[in-house]
Amino acid sequence: MRHLLSAADLTYSQAIKILDTAQEMARVSEGPVKKLPTLRGRTIVNLFFEDSTRTRISFEAAAKRLSADVINFSAKGSSTSKGESLKDTAQTLQAMGADAVILRHSASGAAQRLASSHWTTGSVINAGDGTHEHPTQALLDAFTIRQHLRVSTGDLRGLTIAIVGDILHSRVARSNVHLLSLLGAQVILVAPPTLLPLGVETWPVQISYDFDAVLPLVDAVMMLRVQQERMNDFFFPTAREYSHYYGLNADRLGLLKPNAIIMHPGPMNRGLEITAECADSARSVILEQVANGVSVRMAVLYLLLAGAPNEVGDQGL
Amino acid sequence: MRHLLSAADLTYSQAIKILDTAQEMARVSEGPVKKLPTLRGRTIVNLFFEDSTRTRISFEAAAKRLSADVINFSAKGSSTSKGESLKDTAQTLQAMGADAVILRHSASGAAQRLASSHWTTGSVINAGDGTHEHPTQALLDAFTIRQHLRVSTGDLRGLTIAIVGDILHSRVARSNVHLLSLLGAQVILVAPPTLLPLGVETWPVQISYDFDAVLPLVDAVMMLRVQQERMNDFFFPTAREYSHYYGLNADRLGLLKPNAIIMHPGPMNRGLEITAECADSARSVILEQVANGVSVRMAVLYLLLAGAPNEVGDQGL
Amino acid sequence: MRHLLSAADLTYSQAIKILDTAQEMARVSEGPVKKLPTLRGRTIVNLFFEDSTRTRISFEAAAKRLSADVINFSAKGSSTSKGESLKDTAQTLQAMGADAVILRHSASGAAQRLASSHWTTGSVINAGDGTHEHPTQALLDAFTIRQHLRVSTGDLRGLTIAIVGDILHSRVARSNVHLLSLLGAQVILVAPPTLLPLGVETWPVQISYDFDAVLPLVDAVMMLRVQQERMNDFFFPTAREYSHYYGLNADRLGLLKPNAIIMHPGPMNRGLEITAECADSARSVILEQVANGVSVRMAVLYLLLAGAPNEVGDQGL
Repeated sequence: MRHLLSAADLTYSQAIKILDTAQEMARVSEGPVKKLPTLRGRTIVNLFFEDSTRTRISFEAAAKRLSADVINFSAKGSSTSKGESLKDTAQTLQAMGADAVILRHSASGAAQRLASSHWTTGSVINAGDGTHEHPTQALLDAFTIRQHLRVSTGDLRGLTIAIVGDILHSRVARSNVHLLSLLGAQVILVAPPTLLPLGVETWPVQISYDFDAVLPLVDAVMMLRVQQERMNDFFFPTAREYSHYYGLNADRLGLLKPNAIIMHPGPMNRGLEITAECADSARSVILEQVANGVSVRMAVLYLLLAGAPNEVGDQGL
Repeated sequence: MRHLLSAADLTYSQAIKILDTAQEMARVSEGPVKKLPTLRGRTIVNLFFEDSTRTRISFEAAAKRLSADVINFSAKGSSTSKGESLKDTAQTLQAMGADAVILRHSASGAAQRLASSHWTTGSVINAGDGTHEHPTQALLDAFTIRQHLRVSTGDLRGLTIAIVGDILHSRVARSNVHLLSLLGAQVILVAPPTLLPLGVETWPVQISYDFDAVLPLVDAVMMLRVQQERMNDFFFPTAREYSHYYGLNADRLGLLKPNAIIMHPGPMNRGLEITAECADSARSVILEQVANGVSVRMAVLYLLLAGAPNEVGDQGL
Repeated sequence: MRHLLSAADLTYSQAIKILDTAQEMARVSEGPVKKLPTLRGRTIVNLFFEDSTRTRISFEAAAKRLSADVINFSAKGSSTSKGESLKDTAQTLQAMGADAVILRHSASGAAQRLASSHWTTGSVINAGDGTHEHPTQALLDAFTIRQHLRVSTGDLRGLTIAIVGDILHSRVARSNVHLLSLLGAQVILVAPPTLLPLGVETWPVQISYDFDAVLPLVDAVMMLRVQQERMNDFFFPTAREYSHYYGLNADRLGLLKPNAIIMHPGPMNRGLEITAECADSARSVILEQVANGVSVRMAVLYLLLAGAPNEVGDQGL
């Protein structure tokens, strides 16, 4: 494998390899000089067709800690807005010597299309494609869960994790369902029926509409961001009602098991899907998720671009 | 001290330390390789909630000359514009490993809020907060004055400096009043009454409405940028009248002492607060101010992030 | 020569020197570590008053491969949009220590103005000024032609090259006419009369309105981008008619000599000035042009900023 396109593509051993490598990368970030020379002379392009400062910065920090050169390409105001296709953009970046393209795009499947196109010989990393996948987010989530709840083992067997909110539109949820299942965890989706996708019954998950009933069962509760523009009659009537049924608040905190952790991919709508009290509580690992994001992205870049083939398989991972 | 939030916070010895260090940094910029390895592996984030290309570039150049990695975070189009708070943004940057955040914000007190919040363990450098302070601007101004008029001594005792224009809205003026006074200079504010703040009579300054009377007394005259949007009946009736009373022009140049220098923080409105003739005259040190800005910012980054504690106090400065 | 302002300024030996140096730079990009330490500690500013992500990224990649620090200055949202002049912007960048300014500007002559102004002591590289010139584009085109058709010789004598489309508004065409002629090639301009500039009869070119008649004669055909906003009654009635007379398509491909190559400066309007079939055909060297752009820009930066004076003349080139 030369690309990271989706959590669904990963084998168990690939996923474990990334998480283990991220653990080593985290140690680099704690050292006196937070930098490795590994990717010196490599060029990594952040090709973002949608704004996402957080994700862009996380990849940028990861690449720079590996000594790569980073070029930010925001597709707004570029020739893509003058009608240039993803194909021409990708071929151009390839011709300029991009060793990896980190792609954020509003179209589901964009990263797959880029990787399978022969438009580029570099690595493609999916940094979010439409409502499809956001694999590095799932990897950093799994890494965070493992650090807290499964320090001594490789995977997540025996854990139960709730993912709560707008599953329908969430690439974070899709990537997490794949990866958490792969690593042996049991996933429970908690959402109103209008925010669950068609075909969800074929996913390797349990489904519940009753958040309070689920909370005592789980080791981690992962709250999804509410896209405020979805808040309408079709999906959900009011923010107040959403919070009432599916928001995490102090009362619900009390229902959790003693060691259960609270997660959110950010940015949060404090007061909507999660109260400030929960976000800032001792159970919250939300900021660790951010920190782990850099380590996981370093690991992915390292394995795709610098991994010794005989060690990690023919194509990096 | 771990942060640089305001000139008002600085002690005399801290200010002198920064200026002396800036002098050393200026020598680096004159050498064959204009770069020090000091901050290798450190990540510095330019977090700009207001556009200011000049200030951002100056900090970016300073950080890169110290070999730091720089990440530019323009808050426009980011999740902050989707309602994320300064708190969440700051915590996110901290979690990603930012060693320093350089903050430009439209709210007075934003840098102080960030630094005192425990949202970040990194250093906070105020790059302009509302109408409050812009301490590195004052430091580069003091550095420039010292280079021209007090080469052999540490401070600015015995000098008289006029600050002219819109004092009311100027963070540059506030920072300069604090720092110039601290360093022993006498400050005279020259402005129409409508552009002086309430309580100015408690500041350690003299006040004058008569620019022509002040000019023969001063060693440096610091012209402030007119925000054209302030030009209305409430503050000042017309640009023409403003220039007549408070603009620097060739006639007024003739009133200055032989060695007096002309300063402006930039960007200038040529023809409004200063004529092109004055801006480009031999007395103008405006471009030296820009050059010194990089040296002063290198010094601040160096002292906050790399300063040996036993040398410069417990917390860097 | 300290600047690169136009292809018209270049002497034969300077042009050959750049192309030969680009050849060496291309080898660096093929090596295991695609990076030279040559410009370590140098600061290069991309000063772009017009959006052009492709050109900006190409220069950025080139500068980083030479280990320079790159600062991107998009003039949108900067104080230039608050009325600061090119003069003040340039002097500011100079004061901050910019060793080179790469300037893209909508005004013809902007780079020349900057270079001849004494506003900066650094190098100025014209990255496109109005309808005037875009010299690095012409250099990368010449480099590409030489690689394909004149491997063993220095220049382009004996070759015939067609430039097709909107000559009137094209800085790419102007730079190519100068450089290709200098290097000994015969240039044929193919365009409707409304898209040819006044005075074109004094240029060292042949002119034709008959694309089909020209195709069998040429070694390279260079298609220009159609600015869709020019598509009106004054310049050309319809896109369909334009494509019919001046677009490159499969039928026309058949008229070319066996070794003739197809070029385009990008970004392409597929289906307008060139069909997808032609753009992606084996004869197309469009992506090589992009790759060569990085090598040529490395060469220009190297020669202007690091070239030994005794080797390449008094001022770098």
